[in-house]
Amino acid sequence: MSALKFAGRAERIKASPIREILSVSNRPGMISFAGGLPAADTFPEVDALSFEKGDLQYGPSEGESYLREYVAADLKKAGWQVSADQILILTGSQQGIDLVGKLFIEKGTEVAVASTTYLAALQVFSLYGADYVPFDVDSVNDAIAQTKPAILYANPTFQNPSSEVYTLQQRQSVAYACEENGSLLFEDDPYRELCYEPCERQPICSMTSHGSWVYQSTFSKTVAPGLRIGYLVCSADLYPKLLMLKQASDLHTSRVAQRLVMNILHNEDLAIRLEKLRHKYKAKRDAFDQSLHKHFSHLAAWNKPSGGLFFWLTLNSDKNIDTRQLLGAAVESGVTFMPGEPFFADGRTASSCFRLNFSGASTDDYDEGLRRLAVIFEKQMLEC
Amino acid sequence: MSALKFAGRAERIKASPIREILSVSNRPGMISFAGGLPAADTFPEVDALSFEKGDLQYGPSEGESYLREYVAADLKKAGWQVSADQILILTGSQQGIDLVGKLFIEKGTEVAVASTTYLAALQVFSLYGADYVPFDVDSVNDAIAQTKPAILYANPTFQNPSSEVYTLQQRQSVAYACEENGSLLFEDDPYRELCYEPCERQPICSMTSHGSWVYQSTFSKTVAPGLRIGYLVCSADLYPKLLMLKQASDLHTSRVAQRLVMNILHNEDLAIRLEKLRHKYKAKRDAFDQSLHKHFSHLAAWNKPSGGLFFWLTLNSDKNIDTRQLLGAAVESGVTFMPGEPFFADGRTASSCFRLNFSGASTDDYDEGLRRLAVIFEKQMLEC
Repeated sequence: MSALKFAGRAERIKASPIREILSVSNRPGMISFAGGLPAADTFPEVDALSFEKGDLQYGPSEGESYLREYVAADLKKAGWQVSADQILILTGSQQGIDLVGKLFIEKGTEVAVASTTYLAALQVFSLYGADYVPFDVDSVNDAIAQTKPAILYANPTFQNPSSEVYTLQQRQSVAYACEENGSLLFEDDPYRELCYEPCERQPICSMTSHGSWVYQSTFSKTVAPGLRIGYLVCSADLYPKLLMLKQASDLHTSRVAQRLVMNILHNEDLAIRLEKLRHKYKAKRDAFDQSLHKHFSHLAAWNKPSGGLFFWLTLNSDKNIDTRQLLGAAVESGVTFMPGEPFFADGRTASSCFRLNFSGASTDDYDEGLRRLAVIFEKQMLEC
Repeated sequence: MSALKFAGRAERIKASPIREILSVSNRPGMISFAGGLPAADTFPEVDALSFEKGDLQYGPSEGESYLREYVAADLKKAGWQVSADQILILTGSQQGIDLVGKLFIEKGTEVAVASTTYLAALQVFSLYGADYVPFDVDSVNDAIAQTKPAILYANPTFQNPSSEVYTLQQRQSVAYACEENGSLLFEDDPYRELCYEPCERQPICSMTSHGSWVYQSTFSKTVAPGLRIGYLVCSADLYPKLLMLKQASDLHTSRVAQRLVMNILHNEDLAIRLEKLRHKYKAKRDAFDQSLHKHFSHLAAWNKPSGGLFFWLTLNSDKNIDTRQLLGAAVESGVTFMPGEPFFADGRTASSCFRLNFSGASTDDYDEGLRRLAVIFEKQMLEC
């Protein structure tokens, strides 16, 4: 038998560590700080939910017009005037990353990313063959002017994993750098609504005047992820292309899931939902920070995040420690975390960084989970 | 401003004519023979349907285990022993075409297809850069041995658009040709259960012994398309790769939609559903055939399909007529059909062929719709 002929990108397929870790996170007794799971007790009640028989038929690739109108109105409330005609409903915002990658990236395409960034975006960009141009947001134009990358990918509000928030001036610099150098501004903004302190949250894409841009967000963090409903908004030049790629990918997003999101938001106004979410997550963040101080203050440094779902920690060690090597021991002792390495675009194999999620686990488990984790990290640091 | 840098495949994005036609098919009074829409009155009642709060959380990329087990059991009933571990739940079977394309096809990759084949598969394969190797099923090994294409794509049971069904011997030849020449056997089988006369329906993939294969089908035709639930089964060597590509594409399929499919099949056994569907569609097929005889017997030739949802007609004309040119006039007179050209892998611009769907329109509208259509085709043939 002859060998199968794969495309070159087949060699660049990498498993996401998230997936691997999630598979052990469900074990009984496991305390998971690994994934970005929303707290299940924030999910809407499902018995009041219904959909219509008409939702069972094939539907439009761009998504249901009522939901696109809703998203446009929601962005308008945030001070950004976009048309429903620029909105494409996605099967989760992961799909937006795939569509943009498909449209722009082939072997050797340069993509500008922050030094740490969302690992599943790196996974997709790498699959399509991206080379990375790292940028520091405070000198973003220098980096972009030099290489003129096809895409600048930014996650400017409560970034995953760092929880960093760009200031207004930083946002303006990113918008300027993209427009000036013909780079697509690709803004991924799933955590924007999960803010616990006042901070700058204006979409960078809303600051552009003539460039090409894609902004995306999701109902996964504000409503529920299991429905798989996200959306993108883009400059008019890109819409027909992204729409055709969406159609080629899965024809359209589940109409039933779209209807359920809409009905959830009819039953409970999004503003009220968000108020509750922020209240709950802020308390969880504070409790997590306290537990961290108890168990990790001598081991690691971190900033308390002003929004989002993650703490990003750096071990107090002059050795670069490969935190992936510690995951096995952590799982054995009944706790999971996310090693830092997959968030680095430079493919480093040791980073001394790791990410902890505070939304998914019960507040009651923070202390015990972090205690178990501290034992493992402490042991490793003594051995190094 | 510098120009955007698109990937090479951006030039190969083509709108699907289906999408364009569907957008006019909803106009009041329009009789649509264009899309492959199931009859809406075959859809399950939605008020009895529910899902669980747990379905709102993130879930596994491979799909819900209860649904994978169900699919494995269903294929077992059809005489094919596969494991649930080989099954990947898809956001509709269109996604399977995209995943296989992503894994195997880059610029210049050869893909073997029948002379006419599913247009949305061609759309995806072309996007990734495929070159086509046409094969005649009766001499399939000659074509495959010569070029050893990366993929052979087949739609062997009630093919879209021709409604052709491969015989047992033809199926065995396809399996042999793929295994012998190291080509992926990619079998797309959405219409398998919609059979109105006895005919061969054994999956070709079940006839392989050592090669690599992907078989896919969908609940779109047997339950409802708006949920967007399909699945693929593949040889063990391909599963990890396809799973990682699925994860990179949309993390996982809507868990709520998966639960609803499962609950629909709990409420009504699939065998009973299929019995009703076949009964209904068989009657519709017969009525459509009668109307065709009334209006098209002097204009075109066709075979009455023994299953599936389509009639494939060839005009009685020695001129190759570009049926796309007739669509505007048809829409104006209140009827839509699917021009034949996009189903030809050789990119021909005129074919004298066209496809008519009989499941979506009301039986009461067949006569009037076909009368309107015959007027337009007759006029064109007289002018040619």
